[in-house]
Amino acid sequence: MNLRDQKTVDQRRKALEDTVKIKLPNIGKFSLDEKVASSRNCENMIGVAQIPMGVAGPLKISGSLAKGDFYIPLATTEGALVASVSRGSKAITESGGADVDSHRIGATRGPVFKVKNLKENRQLYVYLKEHFEEIKSVAEKTSHHLTLKKYSTSAVGKYRYVRFVFDTQDAMGLNMVTIATDAIASYIKEKTGISCLALSGNFCVDKKPSWQNLINNRGIKVWAEVVLTKKVLSEILKTSAQKAYDVWLAKCMLGSAMSGSMGFNAQFANVVAAIFIATGQDAAHVVEGSMGITTAEVIKDDLYVSVYLPDLMVGTVGGGTGLATQNEALTLLGVAGGDNGKNAQRLAEITAAAVLAGEISLLSSLEEGTLAKAHQELGRGGRR
Amino acid sequence: MNLRDQKTVDQRRKALEDTVKIKLPNIGKFSLDEKVASSRNCENMIGVAQIPMGVAGPLKISGSLAKGDFYIPLATTEGALVASVSRGSKAITESGGADVDSHRIGATRGPVFKVKNLKENRQLYVYLKEHFEEIKSVAEKTSHHLTLKKYSTSAVGKYRYVRFVFDTQDAMGLNMVTIATDAIASYIKEKTGISCLALSGNFCVDKKPSWQNLINNRGIKVWAEVVLTKKVLSEILKTSAQKAYDVWLAKCMLGSAMSGSMGFNAQFANVVAAIFIATGQDAAHVVEGSMGITTAEVIKDDLYVSVYLPDLMVGTVGGGTGLATQNEALTLLGVAGGDNGKNAQRLAEITAAAVLAGEISLLSSLEEGTLAKAHQELGRGGRR
Amino acid sequence: MNLRDQKTVDQRRKALEDTVKIKLPNIGKFSLDEKVASSRNCENMIGVAQIPMGVAGPLKISGSLAKGDFYIPLATTEGALVASVSRGSKAITESGGADVDSHRIGATRGPVFKVKNLKENRQLYVYLKEHFEEIKSVAEKTSHHLTLKKYSTSAVGKYRYVRFVFDTQDAMGLNMVTIATDAIASYIKEKTGISCLALSGNFCVDKKPSWQNLINNRGIKVWAEVVLTKKVLSEILKTSAQKAYDVWLAKCMLGSAMSGSMGFNAQFANVVAAIFIATGQDAAHVVEGSMGITTAEVIKDDLYVSVYLPDLMVGTVGGGTGLATQNEALTLLGVAGGDNGKNAQRLAEITAAAVLAGEISLLSSLEEGTLAKAHQELGRGGRR
Amino acid sequence: MNLRDQKTVDQRRKALEDTVKIKLPNIGKFSLDEKVASSRNCENMIGVAQIPMGVAGPLKISGSLAKGDFYIPLATTEGALVASVSRGSKAITESGGADVDSHRIGATRGPVFKVKNLKENRQLYVYLKEHFEEIKSVAEKTSHHLTLKKYSTSAVGKYRYVRFVFDTQDAMGLNMVTIATDAIASYIKEKTGISCLALSGNFCVDKKPSWQNLINNRGIKVWAEVVLTKKVLSEILKTSAQKAYDVWLAKCMLGSAMSGSMGFNAQFANVVAAIFIATGQDAAHVVEGSMGITTAEVIKDDLYVSVYLPDLMVGTVGGGTGLATQNEALTLLGVAGGDNGKNAQRLAEITAAAVLAGEISLLSSLEEGTLAKAHQELGRGGRR
Repeated sequence: MNLRDQKTVDQRRKALEDTVKIKLPNIGKFSLDEKVASSRNCENMIGVAQIPMGVAGPLKISGSLAKGDFYIPLATTEGALVASVSRGSKAITESGGADVDSHRIGATRGPVFKVKNLKENRQLYVYLKEHFEEIKSVAEKTSHHLTLKKYSTSAVGKYRYVRFVFDTQDAMGLNMVTIATDAIASYIKEKTGISCLALSGNFCVDKKPSWQNLINNRGIKVWAEVVLTKKVLSEILKTSAQKAYDVWLAKCMLGSAMSGSMGFNAQFANVVAAIFIATGQDAAHVVEGSMGITTAEVIKDDLYVSVYLPDLMVGTVGGGTGLATQNEALTLLGVAGGDNGKNAQRLAEITAAAVLAGEISLLSSLEEGTLAKAHQELGRGGRR
Repeated sequence: MNLRDQKTVDQRRKALEDTVKIKLPNIGKFSLDEKVASSRNCENMIGVAQIPMGVAGPLKISGSLAKGDFYIPLATTEGALVASVSRGSKAITESGGADVDSHRIGATRGPVFKVKNLKENRQLYVYLKEHFEEIKSVAEKTSHHLTLKKYSTSAVGKYRYVRFVFDTQDAMGLNMVTIATDAIASYIKEKTGISCLALSGNFCVDKKPSWQNLINNRGIKVWAEVVLTKKVLSEILKTSAQKAYDVWLAKCMLGSAMSGSMGFNAQFANVVAAIFIATGQDAAHVVEGSMGITTAEVIKDDLYVSVYLPDLMVGTVGGGTGLATQNEALTLLGVAGGDNGKNAQRLAEITAAAVLAGEISLLSSLEEGTLAKAHQELGRGGRR
Repeated sequence: MNLRDQKTVDQRRKALEDTVKIKLPNIGKFSLDEKVASSRNCENMIGVAQIPMGVAGPLKISGSLAKGDFYIPLATTEGALVASVSRGSKAITESGGADVDSHRIGATRGPVFKVKNLKENRQLYVYLKEHFEEIKSVAEKTSHHLTLKKYSTSAVGKYRYVRFVFDTQDAMGLNMVTIATDAIASYIKEKTGISCLALSGNFCVDKKPSWQNLINNRGIKVWAEVVLTKKVLSEILKTSAQKAYDVWLAKCMLGSAMSGSMGFNAQFANVVAAIFIATGQDAAHVVEGSMGITTAEVIKDDLYVSVYLPDLMVGTVGGGTGLATQNEALTLLGVAGGDNGKNAQRLAEITAAAVLAGEISLLSSLEEGTLAKAHQELGRGGRR
Repeated sequence: MNLRDQKTVDQRRKALEDTVKIKLPNIGKFSLDEKVASSRNCENMIGVAQIPMGVAGPLKISGSLAKGDFYIPLATTEGALVASVSRGSKAITESGGADVDSHRIGATRGPVFKVKNLKENRQLYVYLKEHFEEIKSVAEKTSHHLTLKKYSTSAVGKYRYVRFVFDTQDAMGLNMVTIATDAIASYIKEKTGISCLALSGNFCVDKKPSWQNLINNRGIKVWAEVVLTKKVLSEILKTSAQKAYDVWLAKCMLGSAMSGSMGFNAQFANVVAAIFIATGQDAAHVVEGSMGITTAEVIKDDLYVSVYLPDLMVGTVGGGTGLATQNEALTLLGVAGGDNGKNAQRLAEITAAAVLAGEISLLSSLEEGTLAKAHQELGRGGRR
């Protein structure tokens, strides 16, 4: 199916339904179950914000879990983004698809405890070390979907920060881990007399750019790669391996270094934001998802490109994923609902492949003239 | 009007219409003008993602431009957020309101030029310095809504990065400044023979966390402050000045330092994301909006709290702001459409005040037990 | 003994010899054993740079290993530094001394391996995990003073970074761990066919400011604390608890946040540099030693102050520690030579206590007028 | 002259005296003028630390000010460093020398002022803007060697940070600018009633790693570059353009990004520390000098390499530069004493060229086997 051949939104959606063999009854109409949304997702609800949803693809992915040709739902108000990911997807698919790998790190909570002095701080350090199994047991009683995997800890003065790392299966899991950490904190208080000053001491780190997460990771970490052939580079991307490489080096490496950035990439945030909003993720987690590194390497006339996303907090159950339109976007990707953590990981892998498509497309169009032209034609948002 | 007294979404929206004296015909129904959205905001459109929109407030603001009592539209799928901002808004309003100040910095584009060697790099440095007025004139010919204010530049090896700072009135302006920078790059090429390697060399820095933007700012920078009285602290926020201060110090200062974070705050990203989605901003700009610093100071039994947002890329015209539901959210704030840059600045000031409300609320609820309880009651997103 | 009562350098040194009951025959004369230095420490040697060495103290320390009253040797060319540490030492000592705690992390080397693709990258990940004991055995064959404690690893595209953490007893150990890592790399090559691209891939991270080291630590990490009494604050430090606290918050917390600094402190680098040069450490490691966090807390009219140094690369054997004057400085501290790692740890603890003294002194003198006056009187280095 | 041909330290020093046509009477004997050092450089002085000084070179430099063949004095206790810089110097010199460029930024002081609220904070902002000429005049009265060039300012809550940028001619200037800033603070207090909370609010930023300095620079910023020929690469450096490039990319770019480092280089700190100690600079400024970026580019079989040092705080008068051995090292470089700021700038350019030599050498020796071997042969500091 060629998505661009369809003339109206309805025709395009129906063609997609036929191709993927699913039903998408909600994204084309006002479909919110107000009672559910009012009680679960949003207090003082007065209605909805409606964000246009487009699809890019098909995007061929060969992941550790996600395998196949995917149509990527992107909810965005910024013209040119869907076109950009579509172009990248075409380039990837015609180069044989994206290879993707991922590791489950887990949702983290980083409470801070206040002690009397260094001596008591060391006591708490020792307590944590010696009583991990008890703490684990206390945490896991709060939900049968949650496992406490490990923790790291660091101290400064009278403060001890602990970063608990949980597996929360297919849920993004922040609510669960907050409740589990609260139980842990109560237990530690009971056993040691040491109080938790704040359940989140910005040691998690939740929804803030941080080297903690970039270096030690959070959620799911994902890599995607592809070797773009010379033909694809010239015909689809209108560039050459060397040109795209030069842009990558000047922008994603040296430019980001010059700017003190945590994003050594071209446009991770654009793609992550559009997928997150479409699929019911917490939009504030785009902050973490914007961090990461793109690499490139010229191999004769071909170009190897990879992306590394160290911190994707995603889920396929809970939060916004149950809302009608969002759930439909997950269904389109074949990852709606729970599957012992595998659906969330599939979603992360698909996200990384789409991010790779966005990188490839932008790195090919940043030369003088090209990007501005795309903005001029597609992104008519700005007044001129 | 007490928003919580209303029983259904429709009743609440109508009560709000009566209170603010506006009409909100779109956010309660499927209202997208597909033709417009298809051509301006989203290619390959198949429908919409619907994000629940709630309101927090009234929030009393005394800004340099935004003045009055505001109802803040928040589009979110995360339970507890609207309630949190509402509680903070109540605390602020009953303490006399938030004082807000702002500076317009401007939209930036940071192209990278490739030269032959250090000597030519210095020549380009000198060229830029000596021909700023010409460059300005070239840039400003591309749109009568755009002014080139200044630039900064830095070099490494054969690369010269230039950060052009534009005023784009009430538009967020990224499209405009891309087109203007393209014209500048062509002009420089013509005059010096030096090519622009990439129109964005991650020196802007667009949609990536960066010290460049935190230190040298981007978009609009905003501050908001309030002195919470002892009464408000105990009755509304269920805490004391000292307790909230202790949480702030351990979390926003020391915790963020321990984690290598650019967000010395509690939850900027949550509030910024919800306002951005509601009002049609580019959701990927939440990344930049998540950076910033919260301060606190105990004054006898009262608590001074302030927020500093160094980088808010917002607009009230262009992009997603013209979509029906988003435009309605802007209308609710009284900032829809253009007003010589003042509407965008008002929106930034309102955003900062709402962010302040979110900080106050979260810093009051992070002690053991409280946050987890709120998540348990309101944020039923996570499975348990 | 009151050091200031002595009139000449010789008298002061002799008084110190009597007090500490040691001999310091070298620091007062040209004493370098050129043959040793030429072959071990410096090629193409033409002579020596002579750096004035002063002492601050006595400084009372109650560490996990370092215990007693210490005279701190400081080699510096910057007037006012020794006076500053002396004042801080007096304040600490009269407040009962500094409590100090430390953890041995270990010297690290972070090689980077180049693989063919993500698939091979995962294979290397698995290989490392499954063959740690073998790798450990290979590493430990290179020196009987070295133990491989653990490793962490992270991948991006075709690169895998591995951070090996070694215990090197009382040696700073960088030479040892380089040789051990070389052996590991050869072994991995032999077993997997995967080449090490660089023995140090800036993942160690050696002699560069880095969040990797600040968050995950390197060398020895140390904390020191003291509660300064009201009397000490007013009589010795000419300040009050609140005043010094206010300076700390504005400078070490908010100021460092505003500047994107890894040093949330007042002057770690000054003290670390002076001790490192005096005791024969690698001066380039001052970079790492400059990172860290100072905390403060007002307790009625007293002031709690602590320092946290996450990354001290120090040794008491090897490198410059064997040179005559440097060895004498170590002897003055009672930590010359090896003691199963304990001497290096003692040196780290003493360094932290001295750093604490420097912080206390500077935070007390940064108010208007005071610092400039000290510079004017003691630091007559700058021309006026 | 071939330095390695000389058999003893004395012979080598004499050969150097003949070659450069200077006298070096002090670095070969105990030569400190205790009275001067005691009163200017070091309180409680008990003697000296003696650091072996070697020379690397000749190093051919074509700078904006420094021109000629230089012998680089390096004071170090770490075996292999002088040999490494020597090798790099030879490679550079045989490739035609290093091109060097530099900009004078200036010494900075960043005081923090405390105000009552945002309103007063804005008033101070306006005051600074409108009274710069007065402030400049007040500052410049404190020394006729000092000029106030400009300032930047940023606010958070009740704090206003101001970064004053001074030209201090050939002095590193920190004492001078502290005194000048004190005068400014008193003047502002007098005129506005607003107090300076701390003369340094870590907004300078002095002796701490910081993005402020990396992005906005401090002291002197310098670039050096060279194109290494294929012959030099293979014969002197025992590598190829592609191999050295691959190491650079994996280490200085990707490795530093993975580690959250501010040093996108191989070993800036080693060379900067050795030159700083030899020439009487403040050793704590090595922290700032360790920041910076190395670039590389393969040009057929040649290799372009450059270094960028954004923040070199150096002087040729004042501080430790007047001490006998240090002054002799400056004399060796032809930059002792004052020359309207030009000597300090020459020293910065020479430092950058030497840093370039260090980079070239290390990037050529990081492959498996080579570095460890050098450490084994020359750096016999570590016990094995």
